[in-house]
Amino acid sequence: MTSPDEKATVSDGTRERIESDPFCALLGVEVLSLEPGRATTRLVLRDEHANFHGTPHGGAVYTLADAAFAAASNAGDATRVALETNVSYLGASSVGETLVAVASETHATRRTAEYGVVVRRRNDTGNEGSGNGNGSDRANASDGDEANDGDETTGERIATFRGRAYRV
Amino acid sequence: MTSPDEKATVSDGTRERIESDPFCALLGVEVLSLEPGRATTRLVLRDEHANFHGTPHGGAVYTLADAAFAAASNAGDATRVALETNVSYLGASSVGETLVAVASETHATRRTAEYGVVVRRRNDTGNEGSGNGNGSDRANASDGDEANDGDETTGERIATFRGRAYRV
Amino acid sequence: MTSPDEKATVSDGTRERIESDPFCALLGVEVLSLEPGRATTRLVLRDEHANFHGTPHGGAVYTLADAAFAAASNAGDATRVALETNVSYLGASSVGETLVAVASETHATRRTAEYGVVVRRRNDTGNEGSGNGNGSDRANASDGDEANDGDETTGERIATFRGRAYRV
Amino acid sequence: MTSPDEKATVSDGTRERIESDPFCALLGVEVLSLEPGRATTRLVLRDEHANFHGTPHGGAVYTLADAAFAAASNAGDATRVALETNVSYLGASSVGETLVAVASETHATRRTAEYGVVVRRRNDTGNEGSGNGNGSDRANASDGDEANDGDETTGERIATFRGRAYRV
Repeated sequence: MTSPDEKATVSDGTRERIESDPFCALLGVEVLSLEPGRATTRLVLRDEHANFHGTPHGGAVYTLADAAFAAASNAGDATRVALETNVSYLGASSVGETLVAVASETHATRRTAEYGVVVRRRNDTGNEGSGNGNGSDRANASDGDEANDGDETTGERIATFRGRAYRV
Repeated sequence: MTSPDEKATVSDGTRERIESDPFCALLGVEVLSLEPGRATTRLVLRDEHANFHGTPHGGAVYTLADAAFAAASNAGDATRVALETNVSYLGASSVGETLVAVASETHATRRTAEYGVVVRRRNDTGNEGSGNGNGSDRANASDGDEANDGDETTGERIATFRGRAYRV
Repeated sequence: MTSPDEKATVSDGTRERIESDPFCALLGVEVLSLEPGRATTRLVLRDEHANFHGTPHGGAVYTLADAAFAAASNAGDATRVALETNVSYLGASSVGETLVAVASETHATRRTAEYGVVVRRRNDTGNEGSGNGNGSDRANASDGDEANDGDETTGERIATFRGRAYRV
Repeated sequence: MTSPDEKATVSDGTRERIESDPFCALLGVEVLSLEPGRATTRLVLRDEHANFHGTPHGGAVYTLADAAFAAASNAGDATRVALETNVSYLGASSVGETLVAVASETHATRRTAEYGVVVRRRNDTGNEGSGNGNGSDRANASDGDEANDGDETTGERIATFRGRAYRV
């Protein structure tokens, strides 16, 4: 839905607002990339993200995906809030691993918009700690589309999230 | 799915394990009541639960509901993990308010089980701060069923959550 | 959401319109009861409703539930169309059996409304063929609420459906 | 999930079984293409597919998507049945138009598998009536992935469907 020419159109004010989300700060969810209709977020899973089974809490994985959804849907001109979401929990993850969520807009009208979000485990463990989010992040940034599902350079799919938002 | 006679069957070990969830501790989600197939959780919304719009983050509301789902589905003999969840965001809530989620089992087989969770805003503001969770909590504990939807003593519905879990 | 006093408020024109749905006629889905915010539909499963596994097609079960959702959400003053739906397939059913879906409104604002639908297999096999839909239908009509889940007089839950509609 | 080499692996028996679905025959849903993990279905919307609003019934759109999901998930070695599905209704369609659904596998384990299905309105009106399903069908067959969302050669997105199946 977003042409390459629109990539630079997130205003500094919008970006700053989206990146200063209090709940994401509490959890440690970071925005890695942001364009109108597209966003990537990351969460390094720590002990505090675990549930009583000792595995990452569904609420932590959900928040990572929901943050990508919220960022993608508010990076343009519109202010949008969630109406409906759903998640499939597909693969296991563990404390110590890094999860990345890529949200992309699949449909938008004046009233509502739909976003698909794919949450993957990061395969690489070295180069993203610096926070520059390049290289493999760029690879991950393009894997919201199903075409990359077999791409060996991306990590295992942990969850699929779909969200519908409306314009306020 | 749970007969009255089973109400007391949550073992101390199970209860302690469910109540010591690290991610719930990070957010402030408390387990108010617990039976096999049924659980109530509570979250007092604070500044740190807000999103970049200034309203409670979807991830916080989701975690409250998911915690009730996880508690209800693991209060009996089985260990269950989430397979699929979905949420309808229905009403607005604000920092400073208290949300309560009531989960109840709607179907269970040896392999999978389904839970409905209703998240409501607490109407009363005085008597639950002490943590005893009686009175209105008991009222809320029974409003997982649709029959109480018009019950004046319960708060406004904020979200409906449905979860499917499988036995591991 | 609907008080007893409103029960009689479905106009003849509205009822006739809802009961003359062409797709429901193609499948054999009947409207058994109709009130604003509440509706019951029925489908006698025949060979033509089977999928290539030989069991009832998901599309047939879905249509039965969706028809109850559509009837309940359009029985009052508003014209509403579906925005999002989701289904959990819980129990098996077979050609020759009768399924009944009960939809009830769980939330409504001026803009959107939410409905829960429970699909059950009919336990009784004798008295509903005449189309009067009394007795056990009434029992089924009240089992949209979770409180009746353990009710011995109702059939096994086959599916749970949730729908969100908006006013046009 | 499916490599090009696997494309020819649908046995004649499996294909014949999938293509002889009684409920799809009742509605007029056709299987246009079939590979393990991937399938395309088509429905020409007729008067009998309308709901009481006069627009295509949600159950008809759902069945089209569900048929693609069932075909894709049963085209390989495994027999799979639906566990959970969800749909976003995005765009309007009308009697007389043709809808095409493309299902593609997004995740699979020994136990469960997930499929995304995109339902689009056919732009072209001339060349698919012959049933050869080439040309634009092939174009549609590749648009299950999000990358093609802006592709001018494909029709408007009518609905997004996601399904989770388990192996029996």
